[in-house]
Amino acid sequence: MKPLESPSMRAVVEQLEASRIREVANEGLGRTDVLRFWFGESDEVTPAFIREAAIASLHAGETFYAQNLGLPELREALAVYTDALHRGRGASHWVDRLAVTSGGVNGLMLASQALVQAGDEVVAVTPVWPNLVAQPLIMGAQVRRVPLRVQTEGPRAGAWTLDLDALLAAITPRTRMLLVNAPNNPTGWTLDADEQRAILAHCRRTGTWILADEVYERLYFGGGTAPSFLDLVEPDDRVIVAHSFSKSFLMTGWRLGWLVLPATLTATFSKLIEFNTSCAPVFVQRAAAAALQRGQEVTPALVDHLRTCRDTLVPRLRALPGVTLAEPLGGMYAFFRLAGHDDCLETAKRLVREAGLGLAPGSAFGPEAAGWLRWCFASRDTTRLEQGVDLLGRWLTP
Amino acid sequence: MKPLESPSMRAVVEQLEASRIREVANEGLGRTDVLRFWFGESDEVTPAFIREAAIASLHAGETFYAQNLGLPELREALAVYTDALHRGRGASHWVDRLAVTSGGVNGLMLASQALVQAGDEVVAVTPVWPNLVAQPLIMGAQVRRVPLRVQTEGPRAGAWTLDLDALLAAITPRTRMLLVNAPNNPTGWTLDADEQRAILAHCRRTGTWILADEVYERLYFGGGTAPSFLDLVEPDDRVIVAHSFSKSFLMTGWRLGWLVLPATLTATFSKLIEFNTSCAPVFVQRAAAAALQRGQEVTPALVDHLRTCRDTLVPRLRALPGVTLAEPLGGMYAFFRLAGHDDCLETAKRLVREAGLGLAPGSAFGPEAAGWLRWCFASRDTTRLEQGVDLLGRWLTP
Repeated sequence: MKPLESPSMRAVVEQLEASRIREVANEGLGRTDVLRFWFGESDEVTPAFIREAAIASLHAGETFYAQNLGLPELREALAVYTDALHRGRGASHWVDRLAVTSGGVNGLMLASQALVQAGDEVVAVTPVWPNLVAQPLIMGAQVRRVPLRVQTEGPRAGAWTLDLDALLAAITPRTRMLLVNAPNNPTGWTLDADEQRAILAHCRRTGTWILADEVYERLYFGGGTAPSFLDLVEPDDRVIVAHSFSKSFLMTGWRLGWLVLPATLTATFSKLIEFNTSCAPVFVQRAAAAALQRGQEVTPALVDHLRTCRDTLVPRLRALPGVTLAEPLGGMYAFFRLAGHDDCLETAKRLVREAGLGLAPGSAFGPEAAGWLRWCFASRDTTRLEQGVDLLGRWLTP
Repeated sequence: MKPLESPSMRAVVEQLEASRIREVANEGLGRTDVLRFWFGESDEVTPAFIREAAIASLHAGETFYAQNLGLPELREALAVYTDALHRGRGASHWVDRLAVTSGGVNGLMLASQALVQAGDEVVAVTPVWPNLVAQPLIMGAQVRRVPLRVQTEGPRAGAWTLDLDALLAAITPRTRMLLVNAPNNPTGWTLDADEQRAILAHCRRTGTWILADEVYERLYFGGGTAPSFLDLVEPDDRVIVAHSFSKSFLMTGWRLGWLVLPATLTATFSKLIEFNTSCAPVFVQRAAAAALQRGQEVTPALVDHLRTCRDTLVPRLRALPGVTLAEPLGGMYAFFRLAGHDDCLETAKRLVREAGLGLAPGSAFGPEAAGWLRWCFASRDTTRLEQGVDLLGRWLTP
């Protein structure tokens, strides 16, 4: 018998990196004088009509278990929504390919559970929000990072772009899954349709699953919805697309998302949902149904406002000494390099302490982004952004 | 390059057994004339004051992300609650050992993620609700089932009891984790303190983690709270206890639970929560805080009522021909054997079709329980239970 040891858990789980954003935020604990742009959420409360739908459901006593895959009426509404955005095959094409999940992150975790196991190789396009890479590690897989490259010259200097050849070369028949988040958190990079077509064709040949995190598809500044793998997939393609109510409908705290799956996988995801969270609360799903029904009152205005936020922040940031950044094509982040501040975790902490400015360190999203900082510009009041730039400017040039 | 194949997922995930309870429930789809006792939830709506707390939070605009481990005020309330039930070491002993999860099932899944990986051996006391066993399988572990035994004689004939020697013999230094759910769903079996002490001492020697699902601890008919590992653990013991608001506070649909952990693991569980669901909604946590604050208005009356339900159902069931069952010591289920009906899945389906009675088949909880049926007696109106027994009686003796 082994002697009593101190408690030990799986090494891979113990070694998962704790959030560096949270580490920075801890520097501001108890301070009310920090302008916070570190987390990936708007400072706007969820619209009242969405909250009212949840309240009505609670008054009606809808406090029981629901279907694993989500309320049938919500799945039908999501099918209509998906069909309106992607290819117009008819809502009936989508309804059996949908699973409602306890947040976008939860949907992505379920996909990793379904697809990867110990010893599998996963390729991830990076930098990327850390959860996406942590999930296959928890399942025992190896993750190979394929970094975006920074454009150093021209009008888009500071933009992160895909080296498509390098990505395709990294994806081999040994690659079980490709992880790609576009529009990308933190860089604002987006895939175009030609790149998606090339990736899909390659992954069909290698037998590689594509897990596409497209939660920012509506927060796109190129007109309409960002290019999506859903515009390209055939019914049996090995593609899973993750979505969330968080960003497009100002519902971060509700923890509701959905997956679009090959129909052959839906029954299995129903089981995985049962074993992970069982279902999402009915009253949360009622709120989501209201959000979809009156989405035109929310998302277009939100995107317009985010464009204003971006256009307020980016030129002002660019005018500061040592700042390099390109306008993001999608998402809600300005991702910029600050010359002479390569230890961005330390820089972010100093900014909290010395300037009262809360930003996320680039290294939170991978070693590729050391020396960068992420600024979430989803701010109801754009003067907050201006004030933030002033704080940074005075800190840089006291 | 491999040729294009039809989509394939992990074999172990594809082969997870779909819910046999749901399979029976599907027999009753679209029928309004089925008396349903198949799912593990009361038919009582969550008390109004709990719903009102969520509604107030929604009105106040609490729709943002929360702390991974839960709102500090909820964790503090849980610490006070835990301390009042277990050992009275002071709330401060517990607060750093608590993690709020997206349901009890989610907490259990997080524990499997933290503790087991491919090739690990897990021992489970069975029959048991299927999720508990599915979770380590998803993580790639092997599960060895140690069945409870059915008492065949005496006043407790039909009761499921633990063969402690057999369980201890099955737990060796190769056993990474022991899964035990007591009070048990479906059998109503509970561990006593001496058995818990023996199991804990043995697992200390073998270095085996104990994952104890104690969500039914308050639904106990032996007076007070069911015996708990929390009454015995030392700070560094390899013991994780899972709890839920679902059963004790009539909050099944809210998806909120919590874990009690060794303090050394709490930071890691914060990461796992981030990567699985990020947090529970604030408005759900506010409801839970209200439930704890005024819990004395809910749980004792609920337990009294469940005892009435049990005492309504059990003697009437026992009076039917071919029925064997013992009074459950805890939980909210009557688990009974029906002589001559060994294929209980088929029996349960026939009961839906032919008698309009919805029960869960014992085989849903493991092969050990083939020939048994589970009846959830958490019914606001006890005459529903009497009506159900009448339906079963007429079906048995037309």
